[in-house]
Amino acid sequence: MGGKSLASVFVATSVDGYIARLDGGLDWLPGDDECEPHGYDEFVATVDAHVIGRKTFEIVLGFGGWAYGTKPVVVLSKTMTKLKVPKGAVCELMSGDPKEIVDRLSERGLKHLYVDGGVTVQGFLNAGLIQRLVITRIPVLIGSGIPLFGFLGHDVRLKHVATRSYPSGLVQSEYAIGKAVTSKVAARSGSRTRSKSTTPP
Amino acid sequence: MGGKSLASVFVATSVDGYIARLDGGLDWLPGDDECEPHGYDEFVATVDAHVIGRKTFEIVLGFGGWAYGTKPVVVLSKTMTKLKVPKGAVCELMSGDPKEIVDRLSERGLKHLYVDGGVTVQGFLNAGLIQRLVITRIPVLIGSGIPLFGFLGHDVRLKHVATRSYPSGLVQSEYAIGKAVTSKVAARSGSRTRSKSTTPP
Repeated sequence: MGGKSLASVFVATSVDGYIARLDGGLDWLPGDDECEPHGYDEFVATVDAHVIGRKTFEIVLGFGGWAYGTKPVVVLSKTMTKLKVPKGAVCELMSGDPKEIVDRLSERGLKHLYVDGGVTVQGFLNAGLIQRLVITRIPVLIGSGIPLFGFLGHDVRLKHVATRSYPSGLVQSEYAIGKAVTSKVAARSGSRTRSKSTTPP
Repeated sequence: MGGKSLASVFVATSVDGYIARLDGGLDWLPGDDECEPHGYDEFVATVDAHVIGRKTFEIVLGFGGWAYGTKPVVVLSKTMTKLKVPKGAVCELMSGDPKEIVDRLSERGLKHLYVDGGVTVQGFLNAGLIQRLVITRIPVLIGSGIPLFGFLGHDVRLKHVATRSYPSGLVQSEYAIGKAVTSKVAARSGSRTRSKSTTPP
């Protein structure tokens, strides 16, 4: 069916790295009338399925609608046995480690997966199964919340693809992910922000 | 002596928000030969004093040199009673909350303070005493470490000033900090990255 699925993350975070408050609250995000479109619709148009965790699923259901239309949504959970979803939603429950999930979805010919939610993103990153990371930073510090990133067993080098900033203050950076590298142990000498030249671009 | 000191942060972080590994290691930072100058020297030229915490002080000393030249450095510590510094360093110990520190340095006519180190930055941010934040994101996830940001008792709105990206993959965003705002409690309905238009800039 044409090889392994590619997986992307497209997410908004506060500048201090949270995707939601501790209770799932998103009140700190600008409304559609407060910021510019920043490529979500174009990105989603390239996606064959959403892969989300239980928490994200519950937050989305809490909105009262169903943000995914008729696009397939895979909800990952070790504890849920049944999904109750809005009428018309194409949604199924799966469990397994990220590699198993990607293998199963690849077999179905789903070429591009949109992986969302803190725990789910962290699991896929740790397994080396995210190829693209698009982070839109909202100009606010919220001080606590659900972090986008978590513990990784190794460094993950990113390749910067592009950064776009918007008049409302959004800054969107897009990274491709290369192979995971083992951290070098020796600390380099020198101040962490030291630079020699006096003429930056 | 001309009003209260202004305080800035100029710092490099991994994309997952760390300023150092848990042991203080900075091996994940690109060397001067691996990335472009990104304004550190120009920034430091505007600074009247560095304000750092004990940990940052110890990390800097560990480099074996003294990164600050003859510029005044204030080391904040509740536990240290004496500083042992390299010859020629202009360095003194202070304790007190961020407001007391800023008041004392303002009285001396120090107009621009460079606040550095996770705990110190977090304390000053929480006290509403940082006016400028320049964060240079290094294109790597290190998975654990000393975070730049920590708990805040309230949201801090940022005003995006500029973002610059560099061929090596560094992305530098500069924010001005306005007044702290109390968080709105109600969660907005809608997906957190939803946008309506299909033509982003």
